[in-house]
Amino acid sequence: MEIAWIGTGIMGAPMARRLLKAGHHLRVFNRTPERARRLADDGAALASGAAGAVDGAEIIFIMVPDTPDVERVIGNIEPSLARGQLVLDMSTIAPESERRTAAKLAALGIDYLDAPVSGGETGAIEGTLTIMVGGSEAPFNRARPLLQLLGKRITYMGPSGAGQTTKLANQIAVALTLEATAEALLFASRGGLDPATVLDAIGAGAAASWQLSNLGPKIIAQDYRPGFFVKLIRKDLRLVAEAAAQNDLALPGLKMMTSMFNATAAIGHDLDGTQALADALLRIATMK
Amino acid sequence: MEIAWIGTGIMGAPMARRLLKAGHHLRVFNRTPERARRLADDGAALASGAAGAVDGAEIIFIMVPDTPDVERVIGNIEPSLARGQLVLDMSTIAPESERRTAAKLAALGIDYLDAPVSGGETGAIEGTLTIMVGGSEAPFNRARPLLQLLGKRITYMGPSGAGQTTKLANQIAVALTLEATAEALLFASRGGLDPATVLDAIGAGAAASWQLSNLGPKIIAQDYRPGFFVKLIRKDLRLVAEAAAQNDLALPGLKMMTSMFNATAAIGHDLDGTQALADALLRIATMK
Repeated sequence: MEIAWIGTGIMGAPMARRLLKAGHHLRVFNRTPERARRLADDGAALASGAAGAVDGAEIIFIMVPDTPDVERVIGNIEPSLARGQLVLDMSTIAPESERRTAAKLAALGIDYLDAPVSGGETGAIEGTLTIMVGGSEAPFNRARPLLQLLGKRITYMGPSGAGQTTKLANQIAVALTLEATAEALLFASRGGLDPATVLDAIGAGAAASWQLSNLGPKIIAQDYRPGFFVKLIRKDLRLVAEAAAQNDLALPGLKMMTSMFNATAAIGHDLDGTQALADALLRIATMK
Repeated sequence: MEIAWIGTGIMGAPMARRLLKAGHHLRVFNRTPERARRLADDGAALASGAAGAVDGAEIIFIMVPDTPDVERVIGNIEPSLARGQLVLDMSTIAPESERRTAAKLAALGIDYLDAPVSGGETGAIEGTLTIMVGGSEAPFNRARPLLQLLGKRITYMGPSGAGQTTKLANQIAVALTLEATAEALLFASRGGLDPATVLDAIGAGAAASWQLSNLGPKIIAQDYRPGFFVKLIRKDLRLVAEAAAQNDLALPGLKMMTSMFNATAAIGHDLDGTQALADALLRIATMK
């Protein structure tokens, strides 16, 4: 299939590579051209602009950092889009923005899906991402064979924006479950316990979580190398807060986690992994 | 083996029953005698007081609600205890209290272990509890064959009080992970999503947890029947707060969860399951 891929960062590049390896023809564009160039070795054609990438593509993928980035891409490619094309945004951005874009493109006869992912760089490389899709069902079914090359659990969530809302719900749970892990381990260490033994003792019961099992050991080792950047969860929680406010919802845990991750960034961890939260917690919880 | 069992409530009764079924001789006592009487059908002898239960027992189990309850039992049985007996407290109480009791009994030649459990009534019935043990290793090894009749994951955590500290760390994680679940589901519902589909979409990735998988469906069904009482997690979080303060630790998530579960109790859910937190969250988050 002829595919356009816009955005070849830490997530976009390995995802695009999986489509290439499956035999699809990709025309790629990235704002920082060096990053796109590496995909040329795997057979991708390089476009000199977002608009140039979409010409002749059946499906156009977008994977960029934030709401304004997606809106800029849409603005750039819109004049070049043709009736019948499908645009599929896999970035994590505001649900409201996706709904506006979907309506705008629908008027031009162009399908639009929001399909954000969870699972990080490893999931992108291995094709085991969780993909949450919003939009109409017909284009979802059209895109599904490609999504199956990228992810393991692919769920149709409802109308436009529903994929993003699901992803944001996921991020609330991720953030608070990480706090659960960090506070439990700090309490245990200060209480004189070996935290690794604690992980082992409590890791299979009612306290069990992905965060505890996967980030708990990194917290104990003070290994803050990024799986998922603090900077990005801060962006995601900002999107949650905006969407929550639009729905007249004041979530106490979300508010706390926004402050905790801001503190994590403030002490120099913005480009570290989210587990660096444990360092901020240690400093905050033991401050006299 | 000759065993004394003190405390035959919702947890203690099924645990004692498992020891009986394995062929051990139990002499049981409960403050409310009717509850102990049911165990007589399974072959337990009934004692008229805690002191009467311990006479001739090799190991004495205690399973009562709170710190003062354990201390009262210890005060009652102490004059009747004999050198070489092992007292094993499976209640969830203050680590500090266990350390004091262990020291007091050690001076009399009596071993003492704190061995709180996680896993609820189902775990007690099925013998799949998580058991976290503090005390000396020799009595732990002596008690282990009996603990294996009660639990699946049995971990020696360190000196006296270490079992309780582990259990309290577990409860911090449980409380915050439940908040993660409740906030994610509320955000999703208010955003127009079907929460059951959300559980399915996010339940296997970085947001995955025991609380999400097990209590998420109950939250969606507004099924607040108790697996684990709000009243008891409030007691446990009070113990966490006391132990944290002793270690000069101010945990923001713990503080929030104490308020959240107090709110849950205040609106009438103290004798419901912890998942009733979602009802308090709904009211708090949508209050104008």
